[in-house]
Amino acid sequence: MTYTAATQDQLLAIRVNAGIEELAQSEKFAAAEPDMVEAIVEGIGQFAAGEWAPLNRVGDLEGAKLENGVVRLPDGFAEAYEAYVEQGWNAIAGPVDFGGQGLPFTLSCNVLENLGTANMAFNLLPMLSVGAIEALEHHGSREMQEKYLPKLVSGEWSGTMNLTEPQAGSDVGALRTTATPIQDGEHAGKYLIKGQKIYITWGEHDLSMNIIHLVLARLPDAPEGSRGISLFIVPKYHVKPDGAPGARNDVRCVSIEHKLGINASPTCVMSYGDNGECIGELVGAENRGLAAMFTMMNNARINVGNQGVQIGERATQQALDYAKERIQSARAGSPDRAPVAIVEHPDVRRMLLRMKSLTEGARALLYYTAGQVDRGVLGNEAARMRGEVLTPLIKAWGTDIGIEIASLGVQVHGGMGFVEETGAAQHWRDSRIAPIYEGTNGIQAADLVTRKLGMDDGQAVIGLTEEIARDCADEPALFGLAGDCAAVARWMREEASLDDRLSGSVPFCTMLSVAVAGWQLLRQSRAVEAGASPALAATKKSTVRFFLDRIVPEATGLKAAATAGSIGLYELETAQLLG
Amino acid sequence: MTYTAATQDQLLAIRVNAGIEELAQSEKFAAAEPDMVEAIVEGIGQFAAGEWAPLNRVGDLEGAKLENGVVRLPDGFAEAYEAYVEQGWNAIAGPVDFGGQGLPFTLSCNVLENLGTANMAFNLLPMLSVGAIEALEHHGSREMQEKYLPKLVSGEWSGTMNLTEPQAGSDVGALRTTATPIQDGEHAGKYLIKGQKIYITWGEHDLSMNIIHLVLARLPDAPEGSRGISLFIVPKYHVKPDGAPGARNDVRCVSIEHKLGINASPTCVMSYGDNGECIGELVGAENRGLAAMFTMMNNARINVGNQGVQIGERATQQALDYAKERIQSARAGSPDRAPVAIVEHPDVRRMLLRMKSLTEGARALLYYTAGQVDRGVLGNEAARMRGEVLTPLIKAWGTDIGIEIASLGVQVHGGMGFVEETGAAQHWRDSRIAPIYEGTNGIQAADLVTRKLGMDDGQAVIGLTEEIARDCADEPALFGLAGDCAAVARWMREEASLDDRLSGSVPFCTMLSVAVAGWQLLRQSRAVEAGASPALAATKKSTVRFFLDRIVPEATGLKAAATAGSIGLYELETAQLLG
Repeated sequence: MTYTAATQDQLLAIRVNAGIEELAQSEKFAAAEPDMVEAIVEGIGQFAAGEWAPLNRVGDLEGAKLENGVVRLPDGFAEAYEAYVEQGWNAIAGPVDFGGQGLPFTLSCNVLENLGTANMAFNLLPMLSVGAIEALEHHGSREMQEKYLPKLVSGEWSGTMNLTEPQAGSDVGALRTTATPIQDGEHAGKYLIKGQKIYITWGEHDLSMNIIHLVLARLPDAPEGSRGISLFIVPKYHVKPDGAPGARNDVRCVSIEHKLGINASPTCVMSYGDNGECIGELVGAENRGLAAMFTMMNNARINVGNQGVQIGERATQQALDYAKERIQSARAGSPDRAPVAIVEHPDVRRMLLRMKSLTEGARALLYYTAGQVDRGVLGNEAARMRGEVLTPLIKAWGTDIGIEIASLGVQVHGGMGFVEETGAAQHWRDSRIAPIYEGTNGIQAADLVTRKLGMDDGQAVIGLTEEIARDCADEPALFGLAGDCAAVARWMREEASLDDRLSGSVPFCTMLSVAVAGWQLLRQSRAVEAGASPALAATKKSTVRFFLDRIVPEATGLKAAATAGSIGLYELETAQLLG
Repeated sequence: MTYTAATQDQLLAIRVNAGIEELAQSEKFAAAEPDMVEAIVEGIGQFAAGEWAPLNRVGDLEGAKLENGVVRLPDGFAEAYEAYVEQGWNAIAGPVDFGGQGLPFTLSCNVLENLGTANMAFNLLPMLSVGAIEALEHHGSREMQEKYLPKLVSGEWSGTMNLTEPQAGSDVGALRTTATPIQDGEHAGKYLIKGQKIYITWGEHDLSMNIIHLVLARLPDAPEGSRGISLFIVPKYHVKPDGAPGARNDVRCVSIEHKLGINASPTCVMSYGDNGECIGELVGAENRGLAAMFTMMNNARINVGNQGVQIGERATQQALDYAKERIQSARAGSPDRAPVAIVEHPDVRRMLLRMKSLTEGARALLYYTAGQVDRGVLGNEAARMRGEVLTPLIKAWGTDIGIEIASLGVQVHGGMGFVEETGAAQHWRDSRIAPIYEGTNGIQAADLVTRKLGMDDGQAVIGLTEEIARDCADEPALFGLAGDCAAVARWMREEASLDDRLSGSVPFCTMLSVAVAGWQLLRQSRAVEAGASPALAATKKSTVRFFLDRIVPEATGLKAAATAGSIGLYELETAQLLG
């Protein structure tokens, strides 16, 4: 099962959709000049395909195992992680003050894309560390940053995000873990943490020397709900004055989940303070933990959307390889009746082009989003807002199409696709988590039709649709879809109730995502048409046309559902729903 | 994990969509009068939910296991199968001459629907036996029928279908298993069978006393391809003159597949004639095996489409139960900020109503199809053709929405959905096989746009769309979709090349399926509106409106893809596809 990094298409998206050359004109991102960008994209692609991809199958088969409180990964994971850290890949976008290269988020997206295409479950380890780094970078004290950031940035230590409790999932505000101030002694000024967290990705493992847990908890007498939550840093091992890991903190992994997929990623139940000795430090202000957590969650959502691209790329390559090898039946209507590779059959080819086209569309959207985030960091307020609008799109639509592509990958394999040995089924199983975690796709769509639709008096969304329409007047289907999106947005703002908006949120989110992805693909197509490689222009044109001619019109069909309102959903009492 | 048979909705579909009362006016189906129908639907519903459903989870966890050539099922399966046979459920639609009740196919659909909702993997055992019964009923000699049918009809023996070989999947004509006439001795007039078959569902197990394999093989000097295939009957145990199982035949299970789902259904590699002593009898004429196999495959395709309804019902009930129990977050905009059951949130409710509406739509299509098949058996030629047009629709669309509903079921569960203990993930894994086996959904769509579209000079399909349009003039979306379907069908017949038709086959198949399902749901809605139960009328109206207002317009969005043609798929050379 070979796989080749999609280096050319990544470079195209980084150039056209993220606009890396413009970013490199800023002082902050000056290092991101073309040679450096190419070196990174090619280097991480080769590293990931060579070192991490071979562990994907064994990671699925053997998975992470909890033995006497220690989580073990299959052979090879520790070495592959060590190589990743040693080669400096973890530090690409980390803060320069703490050993990072300070490169654009766009390039950290590319590192994650490649790692995750190679091994989606393994990729969650660096992905979660990014969140911890961002939380400390933006909300930690200087002392805390000096203590934790260098090793988190290098990857020697890893990080986790601890939000969820059994009664507090999407409703983070319902959490009950407590933090009690310590008045005296060695740890005076710190806090005793007590509680249990679930779904903690890579919460325990033996690949890094220390694990830095970012934990949401409540101070005594904190206000109820989400306004009473504070953020704490809880290291697995206390850190000695010289920076080395010291004594074990009172935190442990109680169990790991038996999941549908991403088996190599240990999903832990973490228990804090079983012995009353779990020490944490407050990050940022009291009761402002949710805001701090949202800082890290925003880019985390983009990184999860990225997973749709990853699984899409991997599933597409595998299906293409199979379809080129598998000989079955003659082409319909062929006079010689000679069996051909199934890639030659129209419907198989349709499936493969759909997979390719959706993957490239999601990638174009991903790097467009990343480029806007980077411009936001540089102080461009319009780009920052655009990035905020795009974030739920790449998270929700990116992960939805990840499943669709992986499912088509199974289908292309026929009966072999349902047999686990083939590996196509693993991609499909792995893909299923992404629409759930980091805010379900329903929550992304709700964010779009409430907060994001309200930004800049509606112009953040409506202006986007108008820009697409202006730029795509020569593409009737896309022009029409952009107009439909604008009409839905206006209806939601001007006529619809809050319930109406939420009832149409998911179809609207899909419509807008397809419109933006189609637009960004079209920009790619125009760029390569004017470029030096006729071969690249031809392949890109083919997938872009598929997207514009077949996928864009489908999204138009969602307009009725987006504007159908809420009344139909509540005509029946809840008790009648099973009637 | 409770589950309740959908008895009321099944009875409605059997009455309105299958038109059981009209069927019962025929001499052949006179026994299918209302009391009998109700007794069957209620009885099998209770039996399945009570006896088979509790084995669904253990069947997934432990699965079928091959030990020393014997396939073992988890504890409880043997007893549950025995109870099923003893209560006579297997004989519902079997031929009266051989112990069957001779009831309509519609009712055997209902038996399978209930068994499969309870336990999809287990249900494949009786489902495959139906195929063997049909093959013998239509193509076997009287002697053969007397020898095998009574025990196949009762269920004491089970049956299998053996088509696939490693090089011969969708292209059955490429099979290589041989059948050599035996000239002398005890078995003169019979055949020595030699070859290996794969993907043989329930090919080996210890639940029935004998297993009757229907095997496709080639006679010496048979023509190449599908015109040189003959059908043979190969019992696991030879049958003694008194009808009891005798010596073991030379056929064995070599291995079973490790699959993504339906783990309780052993998917066997079967080896025939390893010792040169596998005896089979010819069924029907020499070299006419494929036609015989198609006889049984036609209804088998409907039965696989039925599996989409089954998984849809089960996943919907489970998600509804969870959504009514799980408390999380206040309703958006609610003044009191009190957390509510998630079923109250608009987007969760949208997902649940979508699941319910798709399930009921597929059920309406299923029983409409079954009723047409039954009318065809009674000699109604128009109905027979209608049934043939509907068969690829229920197989392809029914199984596609099976996956979609199961996926929504996972999503409604949030993080819990990705944890295997919840059971939602099993439904999703199980559902994935149905678009693959019994002719992939791509092959169903190809059948629709070639053979079915050509029937009755195009009127078989176009007449259907016209009938929908006439009956639904007061429903603009459905009326429009029916018109779009007619336009696509005309374009395919009059302008499109064969490749063009095949390139648009899957989107067209979905469009037409949604149109027919919407129409049949509307017929249900009208029937209950005029009926005695206002409660039933209200619930039905709610799901029907969801379908017509939100799902039907989506299907309209597929028109562009259905008519986009093949040129775009072949612009790139195959080698460029990874470019």
